[in-house]
Amino acid sequence: MSIKAYRTLQQVEVIVGYKTYIDLVAELVKGKEVISSGMMKEVDRCQKAIEIALQKRSVAVISSGDPGIYGMAGVVLELALKMGVQEAIDIEIIPGITSANAAAASLGAPLMHDFAVISLSDLLTPWKTIVQRLEYAAQGDFVTVLYNPVSKKRTEQIKEAQRIFLKYKPGNTPVGIVRNAKRGNEEVTVSTLAEFLKHPIDMFTVVLIGNNRTFSSAELMITPRGYSL
Amino acid sequence: MSIKAYRTLQQVEVIVGYKTYIDLVAELVKGKEVISSGMMKEVDRCQKAIEIALQKRSVAVISSGDPGIYGMAGVVLELALKMGVQEAIDIEIIPGITSANAAAASLGAPLMHDFAVISLSDLLTPWKTIVQRLEYAAQGDFVTVLYNPVSKKRTEQIKEAQRIFLKYKPGNTPVGIVRNAKRGNEEVTVSTLAEFLKHPIDMFTVVLIGNNRTFSSAELMITPRGYSL
Ligand SMILES: C[S@@+](CC[C@H](N)C(=O)[O-])C[C@H]1O[C@@H](n2cnc3c(N)ncnc32)[C@H](O)[C@@H]1O
Ligand SMILES: C[S@@+](CC[C@H](N)C(=O)[O-])C[C@H]1O[C@@H](n2cnc3c(N)ncnc32)[C@H](O)[C@@H]1O
Repeated sequence: MSIKAYRTLQQVEVIVGYKTYIDLVAELVKGKEVISSGMMKEVDRCQKAIEIALQKRSVAVISSGDPGIYGMAGVVLELALKMGVQEAIDIEIIPGITSANAAAASLGAPLMHDFAVISLSDLLTPWKTIVQRLEYAAQGDFVTVLYNPVSKKRTEQIKEAQRIFLKYKPGNTPVGIVRNAKRGNEEVTVSTLAEFLKHPIDMFTVVLIGNNRTFSSAELMITPRGYSL
Repeated sequence: MSIKAYRTLQQVEVIVGYKTYIDLVAELVKGKEVISSGMMKEVDRCQKAIEIALQKRSVAVISSGDPGIYGMAGVVLELALKMGVQEAIDIEIIPGITSANAAAASLGAPLMHDFAVISLSDLLTPWKTIVQRLEYAAQGDFVTVLYNPVSKKRTEQIKEAQRIFLKYKPGNTPVGIVRNAKRGNEEVTVSTLAEFLKHPIDMFTVVLIGNNRTFSSAELMITPRGYSL
């Protein structure tokens, strides 16, 4: 967590967030008003936070990783615009370390060159659009980070992603799998494009697919930047 | 800065880094041994840090943003592998907030959907490869973040990037320009694909090009995630 995020959570009166994330900052939340709810209530939670801010109370909406990456930043801003209150309240987005960067640090240095970030969740995005982006990312030889790779109901998308990448890349392309990056129970695996589906992947996981020059060595995954050493 | 990075800088005996970055953490560096040098000496600096670690002294190599994104993480790991000392020393990559995420927070929420990160520096990468990636990122409708957009000698690449994106996207596509993101002298501009080159862009700047749904409003740049509000 950034120093800025930490200090902000210390200072605000009310904290709003998904229960799992509130639990991760339990010590900071002690004695504060907390508004948490289940997974599917994102928009309601943000609306509630805006209402609290309109009462001139300070409130923090928390996301995991970076709130600006598939997080709550956009929803808060869009709602405030729609309600016409973006001038009446003072909204600050505090950036964080997104899973791609946290996972990369645990794998070594897989993101040292151009990369793409794609969510496999087709809840809010047509699957056709996601397939197209996978095609372009693979052809463009981007190191590719897959967010939301799998959920209880979403199990086929990651297989389709593998098929797409195998059209353009060799089976021995390194693939990193990081579960609970930089949390107490972190799990880090370096595998290959042909084999990575043998390893458990769930909704707390990001999957990183290397580019043509990515290599693995000593359980590290490294994409050279190109310096001659 | 993350709490972890801050504590690490407090604890180590030696700090190695490019002078500009050392200056940014001047208060943390006080009284420590500092090894800094000019821009083009990245590899030498990392080699020096490894030699210090081999003497059982603790040493931190600093990067701006996230060391794993066009930073020093890969060079340190590659060198340690090449020298065969990766087992003899204990290397930890501490992730940070990369410019894309820092800049996005200052712009609003432009990275709420799939995005690509591309460096326009052709010092270590053939320009042809970079052009290809720009083509694929534009066609894939990724929000696209350009690092190293311009330097004293590199002034044409950003114009070529604009031309490529204009082949696939309307001129009124929002473009955000952030200089010195989250530093004292930050400058934030929201412009369009057709017009953004009218604004100053230099090597301390990232440029964010929106996707087909990105909009700007009240000086904010927002890419909807797709929730119905
Ligand atoms: C709705 S997105 C939120 C992303 C978050 N805002 C971020 O910046 O990392 C949820 C997805 O992020 C990824 N994720 C979030 N936290 C993670 C962690 N600690 N380790 C690995 N993946 C994580 C998983 O792919 C998960 O399905
Ligand atoms: C060699 S890359 C280093 C990137 C860095 N490791 C990171 O994660 O942000 C240098 C480029 O990063 C971008 N950059 C670094 N710091 C920045 C800042 N504070 N604001 C805007 N762009 C920045 C600029 O595009 C610059 O040319």
